[in-house]
Amino acid sequence: MSSAAPAIAPATSDLAALKALVTDDMARVNTLILEQAKSDIPLISDLASHLIAAGGKRLRPCLTIAAATLCGYVGDRHIRLAASVEFIHTATLLHDDVVDDSKLRRGEATANALWGNKSSVLVGDFLLSRAFQLMVADGSLDVLKVLSDAAGIISAGEVHQLTVSHDLSITEAVYEQVISAKTAALFAAACELGPLVSGQLQWRERMRDYGQALGMAFQLADDALDYMADEDALGKAIGDDFRDGKVTLPVLLAYHQGAESERQFWQNVLEGDDAISDAALSEAKRLLAQHQSCEATLQRAQDYAAKAIALLAPFPDTAAKAALIEAAEFSYRRAF
Amino acid sequence: MSSAAPAIAPATSDLAALKALVTDDMARVNTLILEQAKSDIPLISDLASHLIAAGGKRLRPCLTIAAATLCGYVGDRHIRLAASVEFIHTATLLHDDVVDDSKLRRGEATANALWGNKSSVLVGDFLLSRAFQLMVADGSLDVLKVLSDAAGIISAGEVHQLTVSHDLSITEAVYEQVISAKTAALFAAACELGPLVSGQLQWRERMRDYGQALGMAFQLADDALDYMADEDALGKAIGDDFRDGKVTLPVLLAYHQGAESERQFWQNVLEGDDAISDAALSEAKRLLAQHQSCEATLQRAQDYAAKAIALLAPFPDTAAKAALIEAAEFSYRRAF
Repeated sequence: MSSAAPAIAPATSDLAALKALVTDDMARVNTLILEQAKSDIPLISDLASHLIAAGGKRLRPCLTIAAATLCGYVGDRHIRLAASVEFIHTATLLHDDVVDDSKLRRGEATANALWGNKSSVLVGDFLLSRAFQLMVADGSLDVLKVLSDAAGIISAGEVHQLTVSHDLSITEAVYEQVISAKTAALFAAACELGPLVSGQLQWRERMRDYGQALGMAFQLADDALDYMADEDALGKAIGDDFRDGKVTLPVLLAYHQGAESERQFWQNVLEGDDAISDAALSEAKRLLAQHQSCEATLQRAQDYAAKAIALLAPFPDTAAKAALIEAAEFSYRRAF
Repeated sequence: MSSAAPAIAPATSDLAALKALVTDDMARVNTLILEQAKSDIPLISDLASHLIAAGGKRLRPCLTIAAATLCGYVGDRHIRLAASVEFIHTATLLHDDVVDDSKLRRGEATANALWGNKSSVLVGDFLLSRAFQLMVADGSLDVLKVLSDAAGIISAGEVHQLTVSHDLSITEAVYEQVISAKTAALFAAACELGPLVSGQLQWRERMRDYGQALGMAFQLADDALDYMADEDALGKAIGDDFRDGKVTLPVLLAYHQGAESERQFWQNVLEGDDAISDAALSEAKRLLAQHQSCEATLQRAQDYAAKAIALLAPFPDTAAKAALIEAAEFSYRRAF
């Protein structure tokens, strides 16, 4: 990667076109999510309500709705499938926060901080089961294959990430494998469901590729934002990845471009067993700025976003296409 | 419950008839399990191999094979479905051991003791995804419904158990709800797959009920054995449930039959926050013996086993029927 990537303008979009496109359908998705997360066991309902209230962008189910709309879908199935996608994502988040011991997500206390790790593990399992029950109710084996394969890839990617954390010897290719599995696979599946549910099978691979590229852009930007973002806007603590010893692209770039003394610094803090101090985070941010590593990471995110947008070329200019272009632009321009 | 339950003879069976019935099919199930647990990520393969080597009785997939044989099934689908059942069970065990912080299972160090909780959470997710991928490959929505519903019930039951641990005010009915969900639901599903895969749909409900009753007997016996068994034979530490603050039937019976001073003892140790001492475990065992609470629990297990056996009455006397009767007898007579 070039170390002289151009500065990228701050977020210019709040996903207005996407939100406008999916508002009515997402209201139904949210109703279904609330209904399906209910249980006779109060802890399940409480924890699920907390997650649902915390909300977030719900980008993945929005993508399923938008991709279905792009393919001219008329019907109700996309509502249930979008909810299923969100349940898979939420289950992953719950287990992620246990693994990372995160205290804050989207500006709210995490479920594991409030209810403990045990509850997060078990309620995550419950939500994953719900996702599959929703797919079974939909009744399409093709859909079940897309989403069960995605769930397998995601969990393998999470394990992969765990095994390479604290490891500065990984290549950029390994880093990309990890984020492709842990993040882009669900974006890809969410988008593939659009043509699938519409019976527009000629667009399956293209929309899957769109989602895959968008997911890569999204995660690359996420990894840059971990060192750059405004803490209030990001809704999580700055430097979380660093404190967890995660070796993300900004770090890899700065590490490889740094002098021997800099590499020693990264090794000491990321490969050591000691808790990482605020002073170390400040030094890390100084080195990342010096090598413009976050800018280069955002540039790579922009490249993936451009690839995603190019894949939309054959579709007529509709509100759905505009919304999906906007989502790709947003992926690397966002401040949160 | 009667407090003067008859003593139950020690294990007279090592499941010889069941094992003989399923030997060939289970060899194929084990090969498939090994193959499906492989991954490019070494940690997944290592951890899965550890679980597979630890093995255990593999009772649930054996039940699927035996129930299919009982219904005259000819074909290969039961192999894949039995593997899927075992993957669901293994994923549950992995997450259970994280939640209970168990160090020993089936006489071996648990995965979380060896690889840490993070790995156990994520590899559990991977195995659950694999279970669904195997079902999707099988291609029956009926099978997917049976097993996704079971997975939902199990995880809700695990959460329920977590919320009522340390709580001596629960009724016996609540205890039975918990074990019905966390244990019997998968036994029921494993057995229902037999008639389902065989197209003998008239036996679905009966075999489901058989599995449900067998699962209740199995868990009731497990909860008694936690205070009675030979540690070497059981393959886990005696008193694990007690140390985890789990309020199981033996405890509930002794608690309700005990004098005020005894109830105070149970409250102090199970509802308190302190670590539970060996002396407390000895006292608990003394009180359980005094009230014959484990014997009464085993009697209830025997009642469920009798119910399971009665459900097999309409089937002709075959080796499969004998094996399933044996499994029910084994459920409460076993020493491990």
